[in-house]
Amino acid sequence: MANPSLLILAGDGIGPEVMEQVKRVIGWFGDKRDLAFDVSEDLVGGAAYDAHGTPLHDDTMAKALEADAVLLGAVGGPKYDDLDFSVKPERGLLRLRKEMDLFSNLRPAQCFDALADFSSLKKDVVAGLDIMIVRELTSGVYFGEPRGIFEEGNERVGINTQRYTEGEIDRVARSAFELARRRSGKVCSMEKANVMESGILWREVVQKVRDTDYLDIELSHMYADNGAMQLVRAPKQFDVILTDNLFGDILSDCAAMLTGSLGMLPSASLGKPTENGPPRALYEPVHGSAPDIAGQGKANPIACILSFAMALRYSFDQGAEAARLEAAIETVLANGARTADLMGAEGGTPISTTEMGDAILGAL
Amino acid sequence: MANPSLLILAGDGIGPEVMEQVKRVIGWFGDKRDLAFDVSEDLVGGAAYDAHGTPLHDDTMAKALEADAVLLGAVGGPKYDDLDFSVKPERGLLRLRKEMDLFSNLRPAQCFDALADFSSLKKDVVAGLDIMIVRELTSGVYFGEPRGIFEEGNERVGINTQRYTEGEIDRVARSAFELARRRSGKVCSMEKANVMESGILWREVVQKVRDTDYLDIELSHMYADNGAMQLVRAPKQFDVILTDNLFGDILSDCAAMLTGSLGMLPSASLGKPTENGPPRALYEPVHGSAPDIAGQGKANPIACILSFAMALRYSFDQGAEAARLEAAIETVLANGARTADLMGAEGGTPISTTEMGDAILGAL
Ligand SMILES: CC(C)[C@H](C(=O)O)[C@@H](O)C(=O)O
Ligand SMILES: CC(C)[C@H](C(=O)O)[C@@H](O)C(=O)O
Repeated sequence: MANPSLLILAGDGIGPEVMEQVKRVIGWFGDKRDLAFDVSEDLVGGAAYDAHGTPLHDDTMAKALEADAVLLGAVGGPKYDDLDFSVKPERGLLRLRKEMDLFSNLRPAQCFDALADFSSLKKDVVAGLDIMIVRELTSGVYFGEPRGIFEEGNERVGINTQRYTEGEIDRVARSAFELARRRSGKVCSMEKANVMESGILWREVVQKVRDTDYLDIELSHMYADNGAMQLVRAPKQFDVILTDNLFGDILSDCAAMLTGSLGMLPSASLGKPTENGPPRALYEPVHGSAPDIAGQGKANPIACILSFAMALRYSFDQGAEAARLEAAIETVLANGARTADLMGAEGGTPISTTEMGDAILGAL
Repeated sequence: MANPSLLILAGDGIGPEVMEQVKRVIGWFGDKRDLAFDVSEDLVGGAAYDAHGTPLHDDTMAKALEADAVLLGAVGGPKYDDLDFSVKPERGLLRLRKEMDLFSNLRPAQCFDALADFSSLKKDVVAGLDIMIVRELTSGVYFGEPRGIFEEGNERVGINTQRYTEGEIDRVARSAFELARRRSGKVCSMEKANVMESGILWREVVQKVRDTDYLDIELSHMYADNGAMQLVRAPKQFDVILTDNLFGDILSDCAAMLTGSLGMLPSASLGKPTENGPPRALYEPVHGSAPDIAGQGKANPIACILSFAMALRYSFDQGAEAARLEAAIETVLANGARTADLMGAEGGTPISTTEMGDAILGAL
């Protein structure tokens, strides 16, 4: 049987340097665990724009649709700030999400024991935190039409459209409920049903899916503004949070920052489950391209490596191997290995991106 | 000359009980500081629905348009959860905002020294925090058309429209810049210009207003998701934050919760400055109607009293009197007076809503 295929899109900024370490880890699984992947690489974001004048070449898009999983580094940077909206680095990522139909975005916000002091929150508020945010990723205001800047009378008006069909809500709700079954069985859905009709439909459909096919799930609903408050006040009240594309963008970043260590957080974006073979999937760290430290060998590769662990779990049904990799990372942290972003008040000497890769391979 | 007029809309839940204490404070300013107001009262939210079948009667709307300032308690409660969208308590509040044209919503997130321990954040991250969020309040996705739930093929679709004209952005930007001039001169504007065209227009217009009429202001731009992160990570980097209606809803609640004491936070919603006389204005606490403790005499009246202080400052040009009231509240807190919501881990006996009112009048 052919090896499963991985397409690596390292992207911009620190993307390439953290991805180097991921490639070493992938190699290790091939050598030592008999888990070989056919790896290919291509460009996305500003790097693709520089080469082709577009943040995602059609050939790359085609390869992504063929791959068993895509690993992405990060996109964007100040160099591209003045580009037209239609060719900005982000458009490459958004096109991947849309054309691969990756409607379910899983963003764990997990606080690592060794790093609980890093949070700006009190230790008892965040120690042991383990939330999974399920964000709808292919619809809502990110993609709704009409959109644009239009002339109206003698001024311009900026328009975007929040738009959700029942089917779109139904399928992402199911993915959250499935996930919750493998966790605590608790889901909190967030919208603004008190001011938005799209939120009313969201709430209704989510409840109906629960009442029809997931009676074992404990479902609650919360307005998104209150959700932001509750995340800050007492995040451990949550297990799975289900929300739409735009609220999910903000709430998942808020939740991520509660842990205090963005450089640690992976994400998975999944398409429809298929009968034979994995769903389409893209894995990427939550952190951005961090242009300020790019190319200096300082970046923390852990979020990107943990994204590969998520790929092992969600695309390749290798939960035990994913856990092995995650455990190696916990060991390395417990032993005190720290990249620059993980330097606390105590000080110490940070290790480089490559040294962190070395340490993780060592622990494996 | 006639006294300035105040319309009190106490609303639902704890609204009436906290407003009782505000009325005592208003009385004190009339008796002792020769600052008398003509106070009238009316219904809003669920209370108005119970009496009239609508969350805001047309007569009340007319009175609000006539008043020099409106003080609102809170709206909503589980009793009204199943009402049709069009008559939900929130619609009363949204109608007031829209018809009074209160486009500039000021939400201070201030951490009181005596209460810094209450925050879920580390003390050094929030002690001395003093942010002002300026939220656009009469446009955006809250009011944009088309909106609703529509049939499409064989399913339904929920639609809302994010919509901002140049004029709407211009005027709220000015209000933020004016405010910043009386503070640190620093404004950070937040949107999602990387994914939304309405955000692109927002960024462009805000920058243009700055470059034309507010060259003394230091303006920066941030994506709203990063804004949520930065608020959690290091909130003191901000002074004035300018943002739209929906992002403002979420970010201001997030910022409010950083302080740990929602029962302390007031807000002001202001219309266009006028030549002779105050702008239209509505003042309300940030906290909601708290149905779980309503009617028990436990609620903290301070947020509502501080909202009256904002009225003194922004509607009646009585900054010194506002400061007097604020100082009285700080004294009371420093002396250890605590309603139930302000009980920390140390314990102690909470005082009642009325006793907190007594203490504040005593300190005045
Ligand atoms: C880069 C940007 C387009 C993206 C988004 O807004 O979805 C990012 O913030 C994210 O959350 O993945
Ligand atoms: C009650 C609700 C309609 C309102 C809003 O969403 O604006 C509230 O959350 C607020 O922030 O004042």
